[in-house]
Amino acid sequence: MENMDQHCVALLKERGVTLEDIAECARFLQADYHQNLTREELMTSVKAVLSKREVQNAIMTAVELDKLAEEGKMSDKELEGALRRDEPLYGVDEVLAYGICNLYGSIALTNFGYIDKKKYGVIDRLNQAGKGDGVCNTFIDDIVGAIAAAAASRFAHRDAKEGN
Amino acid sequence: MENMDQHCVALLKERGVTLEDIAECARFLQADYHQNLTREELMTSVKAVLSKREVQNAIMTAVELDKLAEEGKMSDKELEGALRRDEPLYGVDEVLAYGICNLYGSIALTNFGYIDKKKYGVIDRLNQAGKGDGVCNTFIDDIVGAIAAAAASRFAHRDAKEGN
Amino acid sequence: MENMDQHCVALLKERGVTLEDIAECARFLQADYHQNLTREELMTSVKAVLSKREVQNAIMTAVELDKLAEEGKMSDKELEGALRRDEPLYGVDEVLAYGICNLYGSIALTNFGYIDKKKYGVIDRLNQAGKGDGVCNTFIDDIVGAIAAAAASRFAHRDAKEGN
Amino acid sequence: MENMDQHCVALLKERGVTLEDIAECARFLQADYHQNLTREELMTSVKAVLSKREVQNAIMTAVELDKLAEEGKMSDKELEGALRRDEPLYGVDEVLAYGICNLYGSIALTNFGYIDKKKYGVIDRLNQAGKGDGVCNTFIDDIVGAIAAAAASRFAHRDAKEGN
Repeated sequence: MENMDQHCVALLKERGVTLEDIAECARFLQADYHQNLTREELMTSVKAVLSKREVQNAIMTAVELDKLAEEGKMSDKELEGALRRDEPLYGVDEVLAYGICNLYGSIALTNFGYIDKKKYGVIDRLNQAGKGDGVCNTFIDDIVGAIAAAAASRFAHRDAKEGN
Repeated sequence: MENMDQHCVALLKERGVTLEDIAECARFLQADYHQNLTREELMTSVKAVLSKREVQNAIMTAVELDKLAEEGKMSDKELEGALRRDEPLYGVDEVLAYGICNLYGSIALTNFGYIDKKKYGVIDRLNQAGKGDGVCNTFIDDIVGAIAAAAASRFAHRDAKEGN
Repeated sequence: MENMDQHCVALLKERGVTLEDIAECARFLQADYHQNLTREELMTSVKAVLSKREVQNAIMTAVELDKLAEEGKMSDKELEGALRRDEPLYGVDEVLAYGICNLYGSIALTNFGYIDKKKYGVIDRLNQAGKGDGVCNTFIDDIVGAIAAAAASRFAHRDAKEGN
Repeated sequence: MENMDQHCVALLKERGVTLEDIAECARFLQADYHQNLTREELMTSVKAVLSKREVQNAIMTAVELDKLAEEGKMSDKELEGALRRDEPLYGVDEVLAYGICNLYGSIALTNFGYIDKKKYGVIDRLNQAGKGDGVCNTFIDDIVGAIAAAAASRFAHRDAKEGN
C-alpha cells in the first residue's frame, strides 16, 4: 500500500471506519447475487477503490469538511449549520459520493442509492453518531457508502468476466 | 400539455405505464418523510419532469430500443441479445436514467438507486413482464424509476422551500 | 432575491466575481449560436441558476474550501497542499462543478468542459491570481465556469422552446 | 484482444473510425501537457478504455441507433427525425458519452467538453459527413470524443503516478 492509501485509511479510522466495515457493506450489496460471499472476498475490491487518486481526494475533502464543521472552524456559519444539522437537501455530500461511484459505472450508483437509504452497518452507526452534539458525519457516511458501492460493482464486473 | 409531452405520455402508455403508476412510485419514495401524502399531490411534479426536453428524448430513445430488441429488428445481435436478456451489467439503461435524475439533483439519484433495487409497483410489473418471451422492458423500467425519483426529488425541494 | 441568493452573491463578490463576469462567460459560450447576444440577456439565466439550492450549497462549500486552504487552516496538510498548488488531477473541484452543470442537462457539461480549457474572462483572472502566493482559487474558477455553462445551457433550451 | 473488443473495433471501423483516429484525438487533448507525445503512446490507453464492458455497451448502442435512424427503420419518427437532423439539444448522445467519461474521472469529462466543441480530426469528419443525405452520425462522434477523452485522462493519471 502506498503513502496516500495509508493516509486515507488513517483518516477513515480517525472517523471510526475500518476497511472491514466497508467490506461488510460491500458484501451486503452483493448478498442477493452471491449468498455465501464473505467480506474478506470483497477486501481486494475495497483496497482497489481506495488506491484511486480521485477516491483519495474525495475522502480527504470529505473528512476535512466534517471536522471543520464539527470544530466550529468554518467562516461561513450558514454552511457550518447545514453540515452540523446534516440538512437532507444539502446535496454536496452525495455529489462527492457520485464522484467515487461514477468511476465504477452505473451499477455503482444504483448500489449507492440503495445503501444510502437502507443505512446498513457502519453507515447507520455514523449517521446515528452524527446526530449527537458536536459530531458531524454529514460527508463521511456518504463517502463510506460510495466506496462500498464502488467495491461491490467492481466485484460484480470482475466476477462476470471470469464467467462465474 | 404540449405536443411532445403527449407523444411521450402515449409512448409510456403503449409500454403499459400510466402517469398514475409513476406518481405512485414517487409517493412511495416520499412516504418516509410525508406519511399521508397522496399520489395526486405528486402528479404536478411527474408532469413537470415529463415536460423537460431531455426527459422526453430519453423516453423516446428508451422505448425505441426496447421495441426494436423485442421485435428482433436490431442489426447487432450481440446488443439485441443483451437487451432481451436484460443483462444486469449492461449499464446503458441506468446511464439514460441518470440523465433524467441528474436534472433534479443528487437526491434524485439516491431515490433512483433505492427504487431500482426495491422494484416497487409498476417497476416490478415491468421487470417481471420483461422476463417473458418476446417482451423487452430493459430500458423502460429504469426510465420509469428515474422519472419517479426525479419527481419525488422535485417535490421534496419545493416542499422545503415553502417551509413545511 | 432571497436571503441565500444574496449570501452567495456576496461570497462570489468576496472572491472577486460579479454576476456580470459570469453572464459574460455565458455569453461567450452562446456566441457561436447567437452573434449579437448581450451579456444582459443572459443575466436572467445566471440569476435563475444561482437561485437553486444545490448551486448555492456548491458555492458555499467551494468558497469555504478555497479560503481555508488560503489561510492555512486545514488540519490535513496533504489536502491543503494539493489545493494551494491547484493540482491538475485533484478532480474534486470539477466534481462540484458537475453537480451544478448536471442540473441543466448534458449540454451544460459540454459547455463547462470547453470554458474550463479556454479559461475565458474572469475564469482566466481567477486562475492567474490563484498562482500567486497566498491565494487559492482552486474551486472558485470551476464553480464560476459551471454557473456560466449552466446559464448558457438554460438560455439555449428556452430559446429553442420559443422557436427563435 | 477479446471477442467483444474485436466486435466493437469492427463496429467503429464500419462507421469510419480507426483506433489510430481515436488515439490522434487523445494526443491532441494531451498536447498542451506533453508536446512531443505521439499517438502511438496513447494507443495502450485507447485499447484499455475499449476493453471495458460499459464502454463496449455504449458503443454498440450508439452505433445501432445511428444505423437505424440512417436506414429509416425506427418506429418513432419524431426520434428518427431528431437523430437525422443531429438536433443540438437532443442530449442523449452526450449522456451516453458521459457514461464513458465518468469511468475515467472528472478530467475526462472536461476533455470531452473541449474536444466536442473543437471537433478535432475524425470527430470533425464524422460531424461533416453526418450532415449529408442518408448519413446519421449523431451518436458516433460523441462516443469517439468520449473514448479519446477517457484515454487522455487515463494517460494523464498514469503519467502523474510514475512521477514524470
